[in-house]
Amino acid sequence: MATDQIPTLSELAQRSTTRREFLLKSSVLGTLAPFALTACDIDKAEQKAGASSGSKSVTPPTAGPATAVRNADSKLDTGGHANVHQSTAAVGKSENLAFRRFDPALPAVSPERTVKIQFTAQEVPIRISDDTVISAWTFDGDIPGPIVHVRQGDTVDFTLVNHGAIPHSMDFHTAQIDPKVAFRSANPGQPISYTFKAKYPGAFLYHCGTSPVLMHIGSGMVGAIIVDPSSPLPPAKEFVLVQSEYYLGAATAGVMPFDYTKMLATLPDYVVFNGRPTQYMTAPLKVRVGDRVRFYVVNAGPTHPCNFHVVGEQFDTVYLGAPPGFPLRGVQTFGVAPGGGMVFEMLADVPGEFVFVNHGFGHGQKGAIGILNVDGA
Amino acid sequence: MATDQIPTLSELAQRSTTRREFLLKSSVLGTLAPFALTACDIDKAEQKAGASSGSKSVTPPTAGPATAVRNADSKLDTGGHANVHQSTAAVGKSENLAFRRFDPALPAVSPERTVKIQFTAQEVPIRISDDTVISAWTFDGDIPGPIVHVRQGDTVDFTLVNHGAIPHSMDFHTAQIDPKVAFRSANPGQPISYTFKAKYPGAFLYHCGTSPVLMHIGSGMVGAIIVDPSSPLPPAKEFVLVQSEYYLGAATAGVMPFDYTKMLATLPDYVVFNGRPTQYMTAPLKVRVGDRVRFYVVNAGPTHPCNFHVVGEQFDTVYLGAPPGFPLRGVQTFGVAPGGGMVFEMLADVPGEFVFVNHGFGHGQKGAIGILNVDGA
Amino acid sequence: MATDQIPTLSELAQRSTTRREFLLKSSVLGTLAPFALTACDIDKAEQKAGASSGSKSVTPPTAGPATAVRNADSKLDTGGHANVHQSTAAVGKSENLAFRRFDPALPAVSPERTVKIQFTAQEVPIRISDDTVISAWTFDGDIPGPIVHVRQGDTVDFTLVNHGAIPHSMDFHTAQIDPKVAFRSANPGQPISYTFKAKYPGAFLYHCGTSPVLMHIGSGMVGAIIVDPSSPLPPAKEFVLVQSEYYLGAATAGVMPFDYTKMLATLPDYVVFNGRPTQYMTAPLKVRVGDRVRFYVVNAGPTHPCNFHVVGEQFDTVYLGAPPGFPLRGVQTFGVAPGGGMVFEMLADVPGEFVFVNHGFGHGQKGAIGILNVDGA
Repeated sequence: MATDQIPTLSELAQRSTTRREFLLKSSVLGTLAPFALTACDIDKAEQKAGASSGSKSVTPPTAGPATAVRNADSKLDTGGHANVHQSTAAVGKSENLAFRRFDPALPAVSPERTVKIQFTAQEVPIRISDDTVISAWTFDGDIPGPIVHVRQGDTVDFTLVNHGAIPHSMDFHTAQIDPKVAFRSANPGQPISYTFKAKYPGAFLYHCGTSPVLMHIGSGMVGAIIVDPSSPLPPAKEFVLVQSEYYLGAATAGVMPFDYTKMLATLPDYVVFNGRPTQYMTAPLKVRVGDRVRFYVVNAGPTHPCNFHVVGEQFDTVYLGAPPGFPLRGVQTFGVAPGGGMVFEMLADVPGEFVFVNHGFGHGQKGAIGILNVDGA
Repeated sequence: MATDQIPTLSELAQRSTTRREFLLKSSVLGTLAPFALTACDIDKAEQKAGASSGSKSVTPPTAGPATAVRNADSKLDTGGHANVHQSTAAVGKSENLAFRRFDPALPAVSPERTVKIQFTAQEVPIRISDDTVISAWTFDGDIPGPIVHVRQGDTVDFTLVNHGAIPHSMDFHTAQIDPKVAFRSANPGQPISYTFKAKYPGAFLYHCGTSPVLMHIGSGMVGAIIVDPSSPLPPAKEFVLVQSEYYLGAATAGVMPFDYTKMLATLPDYVVFNGRPTQYMTAPLKVRVGDRVRFYVVNAGPTHPCNFHVVGEQFDTVYLGAPPGFPLRGVQTFGVAPGGGMVFEMLADVPGEFVFVNHGFGHGQKGAIGILNVDGA
Repeated sequence: MATDQIPTLSELAQRSTTRREFLLKSSVLGTLAPFALTACDIDKAEQKAGASSGSKSVTPPTAGPATAVRNADSKLDTGGHANVHQSTAAVGKSENLAFRRFDPALPAVSPERTVKIQFTAQEVPIRISDDTVISAWTFDGDIPGPIVHVRQGDTVDFTLVNHGAIPHSMDFHTAQIDPKVAFRSANPGQPISYTFKAKYPGAFLYHCGTSPVLMHIGSGMVGAIIVDPSSPLPPAKEFVLVQSEYYLGAATAGVMPFDYTKMLATLPDYVVFNGRPTQYMTAPLKVRVGDRVRFYVVNAGPTHPCNFHVVGEQFDTVYLGAPPGFPLRGVQTFGVAPGGGMVFEMLADVPGEFVFVNHGFGHGQKGAIGILNVDGA
């Protein structure tokens, strides 16, 4: 299944720094229900999770008295409460963290019609460019999380194990399910499990729905689940692009935390496809002349639309809803809403180097750009 | 008719403060055609409107010389002129003002095929939460104004009586009519009337179009008119959600005025469904398993899209234009443009507690969130 | 062809100031690949372009050592690099520059099925209102550039001659072509040429794609190409509206430069249809009762949607993709994505004065408003 095909960054993180060091929060401020993680909390979380804890020599941050980690109930999980203002920042050897390209290829669909998936929730540093490491909240150690690929009608048997220091949860936009139960938060060290059927085809977002959801989405707990229609679409080279906005604070020990206040100010530092700014400029997507190309564009947001466009091409087919219904033809650019997904198709009948972008350049120019190489040989 | 079913807040306002106190402007700045309301203007306005005026002991604000209230002509009514920078602020006993939930249920359609509607334009304080009272400009004393529900082809015979202190007007997005005449401003105390046929079905915005329209929409003069298609849609539990953004200044005597400069900066303090942040978290919408649920989502703006989503569900039908044309299927989230409206349907076949949100969380998290309870019993 | 029908402002510019004076940059800052234009560069550029250079007495700006103008390669042309922070500012007699209304009428389609078009890239001042002159980067001396009108299947034989001081290029959203070759930058004085077939009907953007594309689009290098379907749409009065956002710096000698930093802050000073704020308020569009009215709305952005609406009317037809597919009916407002275009139709069966707007008023109120007069006589 998809999870096997996407390696995680957790080993990297554990090699360069102890979990305990890693999880120390650089800055945690509260408004409604303030809390602060201390080394003590982290140790407890690690004991629950069974994680190994190395060096104990790190000084805890100058936080107030330790308070219990708030276990947000399901009503608040998608609520308006702002109790975390900056994400966990790793302390230590971030310079050893390697950059890794996120593979945008849609993985093969499972031959099984009941698909078992297990993710971990992890707070890890990720190198998103030569000079930037961010303190990410993730599914399976990366932004976005693993691409999931199923067929309409498949049953997904999902488990999330929380290896993080604070509660996390999982909201699949494909699921028709009581979110109060299924999308509830898992405390550190705890799992949650649920099962759903993928009723509609299309490109769907999944994300952590724990409160404040703006912080959890904004810190990277997002990914895509692609559902094939029961009558397959025409064969194509298929790519998944998850757009995210990054709002970052000042670096601590080389790692930049996510900044909740900046998220509310809605002026991102980066807008990225699959977690890294301009990664597909240096390592483009590749197809051959004559290929049909299908982009599953999922917009994690948290705030701005993804105005998707391919320079030098038009889409012969855009599905605003479930494919194959009501295909728009001859589209230059269409906006995918935050929290939404759409399917964009083009016939690569011209060889060349085609740049795909978020054409809302005030935000899009901050990294939401890549190259599709159409090889004519 | 709809207007009868929606009680107003004007009594509350009149009980806790005199109209004259209430209408005193806390801050009025002008750029193109500056004007200031004084107690004198207000008295005149009240005399015209036949409103009773209580205590005369209130000190007028330290405004410049009283100037005539500008009666914006129709060309400017939807124009770019910024002559009002903060809304009227009520002075006095705002703490006595009760919070009231806005009923989101679509009222029954009138049995008449010519529907008489009369609204008043009123500047009143509204309690939108336990700790926040805003100085609203309203239709019939509330944000949004009364929900209007008619059938395609119905004739609407509309009258607006301006009980406010400055000119107001009414722009129904359902009307095909010369706006220079029909949507002209009514001076304080004056009525305007016009008649139109509801040509297309759907979820439409109505709003005050008096210049600066950003200020009049932004201060709360918005509402929804729902038009059933001539061939009825399938039976459903029907709800109306009007999204508004609130841009507020510092409170005077416990009442926060709307702030025009903040409206132009486009970073709202609240984004709300039906006027109050998170009101449907504490008092959810209720349906039963098996119900079809139809949301008429109208986005008053003034600026940002409403990226409508229900957690744990997908819409089996979304009408971007007039229903029943071109229904999108299997939609997770779709953006309703400011000044627009769309119809979202789902089958409530799973019991549970489903949170509906504006999934553009940077703005949406500021209050555009509620619960749909699907009762399985 | 269309280019002949749209006079340019270059004569005006050359009358009131020398090209050399005109091209002196008021402020050029670099981050990734800093460069500064000096009088020397400009002279060289002018020599290449064969432009006449008048007075040499102007003092060069206090820039660093002259460096070669960077000839951005195609990969960067649509890239994330920010090497220009303010646009060229004209020095001198901007007060002599006349205001000119941009004709929004769709020009007649060429009788030829191979259409030759030649544009120049020019940096010129443009008077956009009585009190504002901007330092524009343009196609053929105006914002937007000339309206191009062809039929589906036509061949467009295009040439751009760069009469500007820095590299420019041309990206037609109608072209299916290798952008690395066709949309490459032309150095000052150089031409680029390419040929494409207009495959799909609709309303398409063209724009300069030279890096930083945000700066080149944001400074005015945008326009519309309208492609008729092979089976013509119903007869109509046809108008083209290109929405642009303006982000301006402090004036130098009466001319306001575009400001790249403000573009990234995404809070525009003006939002305009066809280059000038509110120009169609004083000089409205005119049709007669019974006319079908077709708006080709192209959103150059660079950032915000155009939430198009006509006060007092609804659109009986909106094409989100290539007409005549999937026409939406009964639409009040629909958002056109930045970098996109849509076709909006209404039947003008009611006489009157109808205001058309961007209904996202926080931005739209900054000038994206005009009048459609429907004459009942």
